[in-house]
Amino acid sequence: MVKRTAQDIRRGNRFDALRRVYAAPGAVSRQDIAAATGLSFATVANLVAELIEADVLVEAGYEDSGGGRPRARLAVNAGRGVLLGVDVAETAVQAQLFDLELRARHGLELPLPQGEVRPADVVDAIATAVEDLLTASDTPPSRVLGAGVSVPGAVEREDGVSVFSPYWSWREVPLRALLAERLAMPLYLDNPLKAATVAEMWFGAGRDIDDLVVVTLRGGVGAGIAIGGTLYRGATNNAGEWGHTCLVLDGRDCRCGKQGCVEAYVSTAGVARTVRELQPESALSHIRDGTATVDALARAAAEGDPVALEAVGRTARYLGVAVANLLNLFNPQALVIGGPTAERLGERLLSQTRRAAADHALPQSLRAVELRLSAVPDNPVTLGAATFALEGFLDDRKTFAPVKAGRRAARSRAAS
Amino acid sequence: MVKRTAQDIRRGNRFDALRRVYAAPGAVSRQDIAAATGLSFATVANLVAELIEADVLVEAGYEDSGGGRPRARLAVNAGRGVLLGVDVAETAVQAQLFDLELRARHGLELPLPQGEVRPADVVDAIATAVEDLLTASDTPPSRVLGAGVSVPGAVEREDGVSVFSPYWSWREVPLRALLAERLAMPLYLDNPLKAATVAEMWFGAGRDIDDLVVVTLRGGVGAGIAIGGTLYRGATNNAGEWGHTCLVLDGRDCRCGKQGCVEAYVSTAGVARTVRELQPESALSHIRDGTATVDALARAAAEGDPVALEAVGRTARYLGVAVANLLNLFNPQALVIGGPTAERLGERLLSQTRRAAADHALPQSLRAVELRLSAVPDNPVTLGAATFALEGFLDDRKTFAPVKAGRRAARSRAAS
Repeated sequence: MVKRTAQDIRRGNRFDALRRVYAAPGAVSRQDIAAATGLSFATVANLVAELIEADVLVEAGYEDSGGGRPRARLAVNAGRGVLLGVDVAETAVQAQLFDLELRARHGLELPLPQGEVRPADVVDAIATAVEDLLTASDTPPSRVLGAGVSVPGAVEREDGVSVFSPYWSWREVPLRALLAERLAMPLYLDNPLKAATVAEMWFGAGRDIDDLVVVTLRGGVGAGIAIGGTLYRGATNNAGEWGHTCLVLDGRDCRCGKQGCVEAYVSTAGVARTVRELQPESALSHIRDGTATVDALARAAAEGDPVALEAVGRTARYLGVAVANLLNLFNPQALVIGGPTAERLGERLLSQTRRAAADHALPQSLRAVELRLSAVPDNPVTLGAATFALEGFLDDRKTFAPVKAGRRAARSRAAS
Repeated sequence: MVKRTAQDIRRGNRFDALRRVYAAPGAVSRQDIAAATGLSFATVANLVAELIEADVLVEAGYEDSGGGRPRARLAVNAGRGVLLGVDVAETAVQAQLFDLELRARHGLELPLPQGEVRPADVVDAIATAVEDLLTASDTPPSRVLGAGVSVPGAVEREDGVSVFSPYWSWREVPLRALLAERLAMPLYLDNPLKAATVAEMWFGAGRDIDDLVVVTLRGGVGAGIAIGGTLYRGATNNAGEWGHTCLVLDGRDCRCGKQGCVEAYVSTAGVARTVRELQPESALSHIRDGTATVDALARAAAEGDPVALEAVGRTARYLGVAVANLLNLFNPQALVIGGPTAERLGERLLSQTRRAAADHALPQSLRAVELRLSAVPDNPVTLGAATFALEGFLDDRKTFAPVKAGRRAARSRAAS
């Protein structure tokens, strides 16, 4: 039986309040947050006082409240420290350095070895990337509030263990412990589906709505699920493995060892296979790397190449039916499609996916949903990984040093 | 943006506390509830005081607390009033009368006309069934706290409208308003997937765990989803339409107008079709009604009939892959399979479904889940419908008449 402790509730409320400030920095007051979250003004004033005390929020001017006392506008104290976000993908490690407002300040990408990659290779690439970012930005390690690391596959986040990698033959790798030998900073481990969804919750479609599904299309594919403004993780942090739901019983072989999985049709390798099935002799069929195939496909489709157009159409049909499955199961307010494949194929893919989803979703769920491309700028996975570090920082008891009760009450009163 | 009001939180806590009493009537104390829910003792004492004041709970003896003050054991006041649960299925209306402890006291079933059924037929059958139950049990209407009605398809529960029926060609039928002309009692409308899931939450697997998926196999099929001890409804109460997710792209025609839906393979009609595909000449293939086919199939399989055994095996494979999709998406603690088809085919279906699910689910999600048949006695849909009426009764401001603050505080102190 799940127990909700007072601390869980407080943390949930803190994130809820803070998300409103990140969604509109410098523009929201305590009153706006109370109205948007349904929390009492007293609760919001208390949470804000704590966040100001911890130098996370600052008051940034006042708004006219129509005759009453002016209301302070809240903003994030961008200079409070830096957060790092790392995205370990199949062929490269991308890392970005963010200020506390989660604006990207510096970024770089390091390639991984081709073929089998050992845990030591990944640890080395991550640590090197982080060290290079700190040097390039002239950031002393003491200013790093935390680093979030996304690795593909199944992750035990509490223990910081990469349980299973879809690309490499490793199992139960204690990645966080290995990284801690190189990097003296709080480290948070999770996977790209979760990271992309958290980015969407703080900076994309999730700013306005609390129930959404975020589909990520890259080398692997999957979905992240936000319910009531909270990332849904499932019993063991493995929820959202939509890429390994069956779309075609006894269909294409999937990397996971099963047949007919969604991933076998709409991952970069799946798209490349669709191209080869359509025209084995086409130039597009001879590109060995899935991501490069999708790049070339996008260019060829833009030039009107009929094989490319047909390949995009078939991909959109597979994707649309698989998206309709999510609509029928989750009946979400929004479904967001992101990741490199969605970026490259863009509206061409989206419009046909919409039509296929409309053909297969139940009308009630179709009417309820907004289906769109991700509007999170840049790489949602690095941004989401950095957001995990932000959440971890905010969870840390050290962040909120004991404040004298009298002083906090005085702040609350002053704010009301 | 979803707002959680103080009232929402209070209602959630009230249901949470009460579910523990229903799970073990006469055996739990306020301290047990606080320990199981994570709520503070003061909050629990307050909720319990309210429920005692409303005659919903009673103190039923004391337990030894090892030297301290004896702790009162709580029980439901079964005689407080009656609740009705109605299950409108494809061919009949089943109705049950429950005491407040949700023990079934009386039940009956009325057939619906064959073929197209009009809303007036359903209204008449429901009203007649309820009136007959009240007469048979000698219950004055004033003792009815509420009636819950489950109708198949899409339901707008707030407005009490049957939006869409999978069996009959009606749309947007204001069923609750039509029923209110015949029945002078609070009426609650929802669908069988939701009802079966709520029954499981209060009386089945959900007594011990908060994240579960409940699959219902009958004329239509679908799933109910409980997350954090709360029924997940989606944006417009249409979540859980697993029966209309695609299992076989371009596969069998489904009643919904699409192809390859899970329902086309594992509904009673889907099972009958599998039998006909296997051996068109078999006696089993000539039964026209899906439910009767499943009944006959269960008997034939028990006698070792090879066609029947093969049909059960194929059904288990379809079901297992579709269940694996749910495991991969939701990573639940438990997945419960219920409904007439599961009852009839029982362990024979379950054991083969388990194997097929194990072949298709990701190992992390498979290890986390307990996969089992529903243990809710009798018809979970009537029980769940009555539970909706209980929830409605508990939500009603009239149930909780204003209690003098001093009196409530005195009760809380006495209880601690």
